Amino acid sequence: MWPKNCWYVAGFAKDIGATLVARTFLNHHVIMWRTSAGKLVAMEDRCPHRLVPLSTGRVVNDTVECGYHGLRFNAEGRCAFVPGQDTLPKGGVKTFPVVERHAIAWLWFGAADLADEALIPDLHWIDAPGWTTITGYSHFHCDYRLINDNLLDLSHETYIHKHTIGHGSVADSPVISNVIGGRLVRAHREMPDIDPPPFFAALQGHAGKINRWQIAIYMAPGINMTEAAFHGVGTDRASQAFITRPLHLITPETEHTAHYFWGLPRNFRHGDEELSKKIYDGVVHTFNEDRALLELQDKRLQAENMPQIPQMAVKTDIAPVQGRRLLADMIQKEKDDPRFVLPPVPLADDAIITMPYAQAAE
Amino acid sequence: MWPKNCWYVAGFAKDIGATLVARTFLNHHVIMWRTSAGKLVAMEDRCPHRLVPLSTGRVVNDTVECGYHGLRFNAEGRCAFVPGQDTLPKGGVKTFPVVERHAIAWLWFGAADLADEALIPDLHWIDAPGWTTITGYSHFHCDYRLINDNLLDLSHETYIHKHTIGHGSVADSPVISNVIGGRLVRAHREMPDIDPPPFFAALQGHAGKINRWQIAIYMAPGINMTEAAFHGVGTDRASQAFITRPLHLITPETEHTAHYFWGLPRNFRHGDEELSKKIYDGVVHTFNEDRALLELQDKRLQAENMPQIPQMAVKTDIAPVQGRRLLADMIQKEKDDPRFVLPPVPLADDAIITMPYAQAAE
Amino acid sequence: MWPKNCWYVAGFAKDIGATLVARTFLNHHVIMWRTSAGKLVAMEDRCPHRLVPLSTGRVVNDTVECGYHGLRFNAEGRCAFVPGQDTLPKGGVKTFPVVERHAIAWLWFGAADLADEALIPDLHWIDAPGWTTITGYSHFHCDYRLINDNLLDLSHETYIHKHTIGHGSVADSPVISNVIGGRLVRAHREMPDIDPPPFFAALQGHAGKINRWQIAIYMAPGINMTEAAFHGVGTDRASQAFITRPLHLITPETEHTAHYFWGLPRNFRHGDEELSKKIYDGVVHTFNEDRALLELQDKRLQAENMPQIPQMAVKTDIAPVQGRRLLADMIQKEKDDPRFVLPPVPLADDAIITMPYAQAAE
Repeated sequence: MWPKNCWYVAGFAKDIGATLVARTFLNHHVIMWRTSAGKLVAMEDRCPHRLVPLSTGRVVNDTVECGYHGLRFNAEGRCAFVPGQDTLPKGGVKTFPVVERHAIAWLWFGAADLADEALIPDLHWIDAPGWTTITGYSHFHCDYRLINDNLLDLSHETYIHKHTIGHGSVADSPVISNVIGGRLVRAHREMPDIDPPPFFAALQGHAGKINRWQIAIYMAPGINMTEAAFHGVGTDRASQAFITRPLHLITPETEHTAHYFWGLPRNFRHGDEELSKKIYDGVVHTFNEDRALLELQDKRLQAENMPQIPQMAVKTDIAPVQGRRLLADMIQKEKDDPRFVLPPVPLADDAIITMPYAQAAE
Repeated sequence: MWPKNCWYVAGFAKDIGATLVARTFLNHHVIMWRTSAGKLVAMEDRCPHRLVPLSTGRVVNDTVECGYHGLRFNAEGRCAFVPGQDTLPKGGVKTFPVVERHAIAWLWFGAADLADEALIPDLHWIDAPGWTTITGYSHFHCDYRLINDNLLDLSHETYIHKHTIGHGSVADSPVISNVIGGRLVRAHREMPDIDPPPFFAALQGHAGKINRWQIAIYMAPGINMTEAAFHGVGTDRASQAFITRPLHLITPETEHTAHYFWGLPRNFRHGDEELSKKIYDGVVHTFNEDRALLELQDKRLQAENMPQIPQMAVKTDIAPVQGRRLLADMIQKEKDDPRFVLPPVPLADDAIITMPYAQAAE
Repeated sequence: MWPKNCWYVAGFAKDIGATLVARTFLNHHVIMWRTSAGKLVAMEDRCPHRLVPLSTGRVVNDTVECGYHGLRFNAEGRCAFVPGQDTLPKGGVKTFPVVERHAIAWLWFGAADLADEALIPDLHWIDAPGWTTITGYSHFHCDYRLINDNLLDLSHETYIHKHTIGHGSVADSPVISNVIGGRLVRAHREMPDIDPPPFFAALQGHAGKINRWQIAIYMAPGINMTEAAFHGVGTDRASQAFITRPLHLITPETEHTAHYFWGLPRNFRHGDEELSKKIYDGVVHTFNEDRALLELQDKRLQAENMPQIPQMAVKTDIAPVQGRRLLADMIQKEKDDPRFVLPPVPLADDAIITMPYAQAAE
């Protein structure tokens, strides 16, 4: 259901400190913490003594102390202390490669020697100058692939989000979808010369027509970036657009649950906390709508023993089907060769993101 | 566990309109709605595109619009609209035969060409002149057959409903039980010359003795009618009896859950809304008592892998055992011949309902 | 997972009267009640008629009346009454040997003819002169063996109960652990000349140093007694110690749930109700801490398909490992010979309980 030889988003680095953070990824129970020197540590959330979660315990002197009998394990996972005895048992706790990059903690569950930091996707907008980013988290009770599908066919906005960001123009506008570099899917929709939804009108300061566009970019297994942007008709797209690049960082928790870490960088009204709060609330509301539907979908798919979807294909399925193929291909190649690693593609390459619709259509 | 070639009660017709009603019957997820011409429609609650429930959507222009990507399906189940494209995909949504009769929506899950309306049981009291009917609904977490069993042995009233309708005379009085026409079971109990329970005393206006009777009629798989009636000793049974004919319309939802639609026609105090309210509250209270016990029974039976019951048989088991045999026979015959249909028996025939006890006993 | 040919604690005798008490032990659903002559009765909580729990009913005239159709069964389990019929069906309800001893109801689930009362463990402090006992109950969602493990390695107090009874000295002090008579494990820890925890200081009236000790005694499958005691340094251990002998009476309910009946006899401040209340609250708080951890442990062990523990052994595992071996041995012997019974060892023998540490260490 998922490849192992790739970096997964495990959380926002700022949320991991001297207190244990326990999360499950790809069915692995993991604790994350930070040494006094600031180094991130990720290890199995399982005391090798009596198999209780180490997250019952706490960080003491750069070790994790189990909450049951007080055994301690250091950042390398080795047993470092046992109460009441001087000799220490061999063995310890499995650790996982973990790297902090772009304000994110990245975890690797495949062969540890393949965990090359160069394979980490570039999500630099999340902490880059020129961008103001808000972040959040949601937990979905569904197969993580359903979230990718959802993000690669934004025509759903017209229906699921009809009372907020949805608009008839989204479902009605044709999409150009490309596979790039054997790892990215890029689905591009332009909605020129339309009436702005109320929120967009407020942003530009008047209700004049806008040119709106959406570019959904997917990197298997679970990195999604959706450029959602517009500029007033008659203004300059390159310099006057209101651009957001929502990041949807999906990491499987189990076969039917997923972590949904998200960031929303914007290129306008930096420092406007009230706007940030308003966007945050809107994102939470929107993702809750997605979640309710995807969880229903997952239940039904499980009841039918996980058939392939779509069963009745329509045009807007092209991008999600391309995405599923890339993912299935990664999984199959890793199955054939456990040391297979798919080199990354520069997700953050402006040439890819900003490629004109006409060029994408060629 | 259930036959398919027969009409099942899917709800009260008045509850189905332009808004989707989603219910599950015999493990089929179904939506029901009504066209602008007033025609009832029943179809699978499953969008063939990405398998989400169509009940996430709404009725638009005599079609159902899916709540995910807006595909629409007409009353025949065919795809009638896809946002953003002109050509329509083939295929569509499975529909089910549905008929409105006696204020009830009847559904058919077997071979569609066998869905003859003449096979619908006659429940005309529910909307007939001379009868005032209240209706309601309950959901039971148990095998629907346990509800039939319960209704065919009313001696349970003395124990489950001891604080309301129960009375020692119910369990103590002998029952005559007959199989009629290979499809009905009729269990008849007379309780002559007894003190009236308080509610009955109030109905007849004094506490004088009454002749009470119960006639439980069952038509497999799930139609139950229980004539519960009495008249004052010395008054005329034919013209002065207080008669109710509660209908217990049981439709399996899954193997271990059931719909319990009910109607309670009475032949007295028409237009007395206060009495109707009182009866409604009493029925809800009584069925809640049944439900609590039957759900416990179902759990225990499941834990024992669904053994046959009764294991220790007593006299009052005759009717429920007859009922189980009729049902098992229907299921077996349909298994042997998928086109087997059991012709109906006129449940509502007054000659059957009002057959004297002495005649039934012959 | 458990032996059958031994007496299990089914509850406190005082809690069983003319009202049915329904509990599950070793996957058997049981009801317990008392005849008008005061005799305890235990029988299957299952009406042989339609398999509903008899606990839906009530005790009537020294019989149990089922809550569904009113069948009655006497103290020997035989059907004694059926409403509306004179002849009684054969068969009835399975009964279990049950004995009242030391304020406790003891149940036997093995071969009934082996249920010798001489096999009941001696827990006389619970109602003996010289001891004041409070009792209570807790329900744990875990394999009962995890509770035994927990009680045989009290070093956990330092970690699980760090805010109450825990103290670094517990985990730091060495334990002498012995197997006695092939059925008992006795783990002894002395903590001489330590500062008293606040509660102990209050008991002795000043904060002077104390000699503290813990003696955990386990009799398979689920009887645990933990002598937890201290005396002021310079006072006489034999005559001036504050001794408690908490009894942890663990009976499996299912493979992954357990009954935890407990008693706490003390040899001091008899009649001090305020102290009893304080101790009661403390025990409940402490066991809740244990429960939270053991339930987490059980979930993880189930997820790993119940591997052996400990996987990384430390010194304090000696006693719990000895206990597991005794228990596994009992189960294996009974598997080899269904009539195998392990003779009891006098748990309450003062020579065993008060054996000096030095002697135990030999």
